[in-house]
Amino acid sequence: MRKEFGAEQYFEDFAPGDEFRTGPVHFDEAGIVAFAREFDPQPFHIDAQAARHTLYGGLIASGWQVCAATFRALVDAGFLRGGGMGSPGLDELRWKKPVRPGDDLEVRLTITGTRPSNSRADRGYVDFAVDVRNQAGETVMSYRVTEIVRRREA
Amino acid sequence: MRKEFGAEQYFEDFAPGDEFRTGPVHFDEAGIVAFAREFDPQPFHIDAQAARHTLYGGLIASGWQVCAATFRALVDAGFLRGGGMGSPGLDELRWKKPVRPGDDLEVRLTITGTRPSNSRADRGYVDFAVDVRNQAGETVMSYRVTEIVRRREA
Repeated sequence: MRKEFGAEQYFEDFAPGDEFRTGPVHFDEAGIVAFAREFDPQPFHIDAQAARHTLYGGLIASGWQVCAATFRALVDAGFLRGGGMGSPGLDELRWKKPVRPGDDLEVRLTITGTRPSNSRADRGYVDFAVDVRNQAGETVMSYRVTEIVRRREA
Repeated sequence: MRKEFGAEQYFEDFAPGDEFRTGPVHFDEAGIVAFAREFDPQPFHIDAQAARHTLYGGLIASGWQVCAATFRALVDAGFLRGGGMGSPGLDELRWKKPVRPGDDLEVRLTITGTRPSNSRADRGYVDFAVDVRNQAGETVMSYRVTEIVRRREA
């Protein structure tokens, strides 16, 4: 069921099947190049001219930028506000389509499972499927991630 | 076998078992806070005072920063220079230990497999295991990643 993030979210507030979406995350050439110069200076991320002669046919965003910028959109939307305790990791990250200057991405987050911690009474684990789509509705990136979330009574 | 990156690397230059390492990647409080303010503004990443009262007991780097900053170290070391064509994705990313101000990380990259593309004669896939360690020798992050790499004759 599609939901909105509340002012705060704790372990008890998440149920499998819940879905959340963010507003659009815009990518432009200057932002793509600036991120890549700092973190991923490969030719198809930092040089629009050179990128024309690669398999991508033009500048594309670093996959790490797609991860980080869409995560920011989740935090801005209120994701894990209050209860977030970090993440042990993620799985099956796939960069499926290039993200190019002018693209606007939407993040769709679906809860796939929840389980209380066996060893710590104050927290639980919430599993999410992340599906990032561009303005054409194409999935450009997806992954599964687990977050550690504080219990409301803790 | 431990190797150094050559001036350029193509598909034929990689063999299972080859291992590469980067020089140290330094994390400081200002850099941790700056990255997190832009991409991951959770309390334990942006506010040293607030972070003291979380399970981490102090400021820690965003997992996305650990990904991006260590990837930059690989590119600086020469990783995929010449032959790199991007990545379809990664698996089993684990943030195992917090990364704190003052930490110096080393990236160890081991080739776990190579296979030519069935559909494109000019490229192949190389699978890597990434192991990121701190100055105490503890693994702070690990993942498996596949890179698309151009063949030398292409």
